[in-house]
Amino acid sequence: MSTKTITREVSDGILTITLDRPEQLNAFTVTMAEELEAAFVEVNDDDEVRAVIVTGAGRAFCAGMDLSSEGNVFGLDGDRTPGFADLADLDDPELARIRDTGGRVTLAIHDCRKPVIAAINGAAVGIGATMTLAMDARLASAKARIGLVFGRLGVVPEAASTWFLPRVVGLPTALDLAYSADILDAAQSHEAGLVRSVHEPADLLDAARELADRWTRGRSAVAVALTRQMMRRNPASPGPEDAHRVDSLAMFYTSIGDGTEGVAAFREKRDARFTSRASDMPPFYEDWLDSTRD
Amino acid sequence: MSTKTITREVSDGILTITLDRPEQLNAFTVTMAEELEAAFVEVNDDDEVRAVIVTGAGRAFCAGMDLSSEGNVFGLDGDRTPGFADLADLDDPELARIRDTGGRVTLAIHDCRKPVIAAINGAAVGIGATMTLAMDARLASAKARIGLVFGRLGVVPEAASTWFLPRVVGLPTALDLAYSADILDAAQSHEAGLVRSVHEPADLLDAARELADRWTRGRSAVAVALTRQMMRRNPASPGPEDAHRVDSLAMFYTSIGDGTEGVAAFREKRDARFTSRASDMPPFYEDWLDSTRD
Amino acid sequence: MSTKTITREVSDGILTITLDRPEQLNAFTVTMAEELEAAFVEVNDDDEVRAVIVTGAGRAFCAGMDLSSEGNVFGLDGDRTPGFADLADLDDPELARIRDTGGRVTLAIHDCRKPVIAAINGAAVGIGATMTLAMDARLASAKARIGLVFGRLGVVPEAASTWFLPRVVGLPTALDLAYSADILDAAQSHEAGLVRSVHEPADLLDAARELADRWTRGRSAVAVALTRQMMRRNPASPGPEDAHRVDSLAMFYTSIGDGTEGVAAFREKRDARFTSRASDMPPFYEDWLDSTRD
Repeated sequence: MSTKTITREVSDGILTITLDRPEQLNAFTVTMAEELEAAFVEVNDDDEVRAVIVTGAGRAFCAGMDLSSEGNVFGLDGDRTPGFADLADLDDPELARIRDTGGRVTLAIHDCRKPVIAAINGAAVGIGATMTLAMDARLASAKARIGLVFGRLGVVPEAASTWFLPRVVGLPTALDLAYSADILDAAQSHEAGLVRSVHEPADLLDAARELADRWTRGRSAVAVALTRQMMRRNPASPGPEDAHRVDSLAMFYTSIGDGTEGVAAFREKRDARFTSRASDMPPFYEDWLDSTRD
Repeated sequence: MSTKTITREVSDGILTITLDRPEQLNAFTVTMAEELEAAFVEVNDDDEVRAVIVTGAGRAFCAGMDLSSEGNVFGLDGDRTPGFADLADLDDPELARIRDTGGRVTLAIHDCRKPVIAAINGAAVGIGATMTLAMDARLASAKARIGLVFGRLGVVPEAASTWFLPRVVGLPTALDLAYSADILDAAQSHEAGLVRSVHEPADLLDAARELADRWTRGRSAVAVALTRQMMRRNPASPGPEDAHRVDSLAMFYTSIGDGTEGVAAFREKRDARFTSRASDMPPFYEDWLDSTRD
Repeated sequence: MSTKTITREVSDGILTITLDRPEQLNAFTVTMAEELEAAFVEVNDDDEVRAVIVTGAGRAFCAGMDLSSEGNVFGLDGDRTPGFADLADLDDPELARIRDTGGRVTLAIHDCRKPVIAAINGAAVGIGATMTLAMDARLASAKARIGLVFGRLGVVPEAASTWFLPRVVGLPTALDLAYSADILDAAQSHEAGLVRSVHEPADLLDAARELADRWTRGRSAVAVALTRQMMRRNPASPGPEDAHRVDSLAMFYTSIGDGTEGVAAFREKRDARFTSRASDMPPFYEDWLDSTRD
């Protein structure tokens, strides 16, 4: 895939995706949405990659939707005829034609088989902020600025951020961030629970790589992918019973795979050599993911 | 609506509801429940109001159910014949006749189209505590006392507080507060995450008004109402996919409404003049709310 | 029930379950799973017991699955023929034959009618850590060590821990703990939110007993059991409406039971004498629990 708005580089098992429109502060466009979505789908089957880091070129992370053009500044896919405004039935198939492009990106991040880390190097505003909420950790440069500014523009938080944000910071803080629509500096973002840690600008990418390594180096690719999805999907089931059913299957599959090597290595007091590939998930995997989607 | 147990005053776009039985420490009665429920329904269509503050007259916020009479001290609506005690089927239509009146109030607060702020000026005990959990923020006077004392009376937390409380303080603290049934002072309440901030008694209402203004002054009434409900309802869906569908619709409707003005004002470097009214929500709004109710 | 791997002692209304294979650091076996599951079922009907404490004999709490034998080191029940690996349909009845034994224990703890407190006296690793997540509080000795080490063995977190852990520590920390697979010391466990408090080793059991008393001494057994399940099950419903229906019923039943005594005692300024028994829950109880299980 050749890309216009992002660059991708794989080094030592880590894919770094750089939002790369520095002259426009990496402002988000429909093209960037398509390229990001495709990148997060593609990486699922790229067994060279253990983890993903997302950062921005130049001084910003992503300054939000590109409002400089007269184009599709709200990032909505599909036919945007005002006639849609009269539709009231949420199940009307016509509505499937309207899709928030930010959400297409965060759903792809949520579905990813590899841990995803945001290295927020500068301003992360609007979709620049909400896209990071679907990632597994947010590390910030001391120069980072994070804002869910939608309220100032008369619109709503998007990119499924109302699903992700309360899981990251809790409901009271989530409501406050969305209503206030303020831009927080790095320290305030850390205080609010939006970011895990704050780093000197020059150290940010190294810190992200170190975390990616801590999470994935030498680990079972299938176990990591299953763990990621179990932690994201199981808590939303009505009780632990559904999680128990998924656990049992996931433990069964890993126990006859990398788990056998893991236990052998433990007994022999040596490092394990795991061989599973995330491109080859257990048969129940896609069926299970689908079952959680409605 | 004329009221006996509460007073209402609108000033500069903010409705202040005062629980007003100071001689009884604003103890809760079925009449108060009915008046509060009606007030939170009525304000949805009152476009003069941007936000709601709830406080208490005199030295208490609300001392819980009025136990001084021999009446309906548990606040249960409907026929309370002991025969109900034999009903085992949760879907038995007879059960619809029993309703916890505290829950009628918190459901109305949850459904409200305007942010709601508790200004807890004194004792908030039992339903006095649980009614605030459905609000968007809790500010406390240094004299506030908050207690889920139900366990001391041999009954259970009500007003849907077992749904709201873990969203406010997390499950481990929620269990501790309910089991312990203690009355916490203002500092302890802040430590537990029950309240956002603690204020000198004389400053409490000003702080609540300042927060209400920060959240709603100059904002799009429809975007605020949608944001409130998206943040409250979307996280409960099994995955972010449902949130994405609601986002897409909500972004679509706001983008052809106040969002157009918001982007124009941003480009012209001027304040936006939003004109939407919460009394006129998008066609999908009620249908969506209903779809999350069972 | 005679037991081989655990001991049980009831003292002053508190059941202490001790994981009792000290020579093996109380490593978990299928027998231990069966004995724990049975103990948590049995205690529901034992009206002598108000609360349960779980601790370990000797210097460990539970060092995880017993990897020292060549047996069923993954704790999976049922036929473990590799043929299962091809099953893709989550609804295939064959899959019901595979069950994670750790999950059988945590589901029984989740369903328990009495508060359950972990007194983590030493290493709690793997299932030794995840079994405590289903309990109502975790108290740690300064010598405790807690680790979700599954990732190091090439397998996944089990015992429905992906349902419980984000409820205890939030999603970002839950992902970090599972990916990192580190063993945390007591201070780190407290910092991460895994444990409520850290105690000198000699004081740990007293602290657990004090908390159990604070939660349950002199309380209504039925109200405590209902509160426990309401706080665990209601938050997972799509909105507060379902919680309101359960509240109404639970308040109704307790109001005609211990609540009558509770209010009388309050009016007469004396201690209440509650008489309900957890062995005799309201008729709707089991039906309600079942309704939350799928």
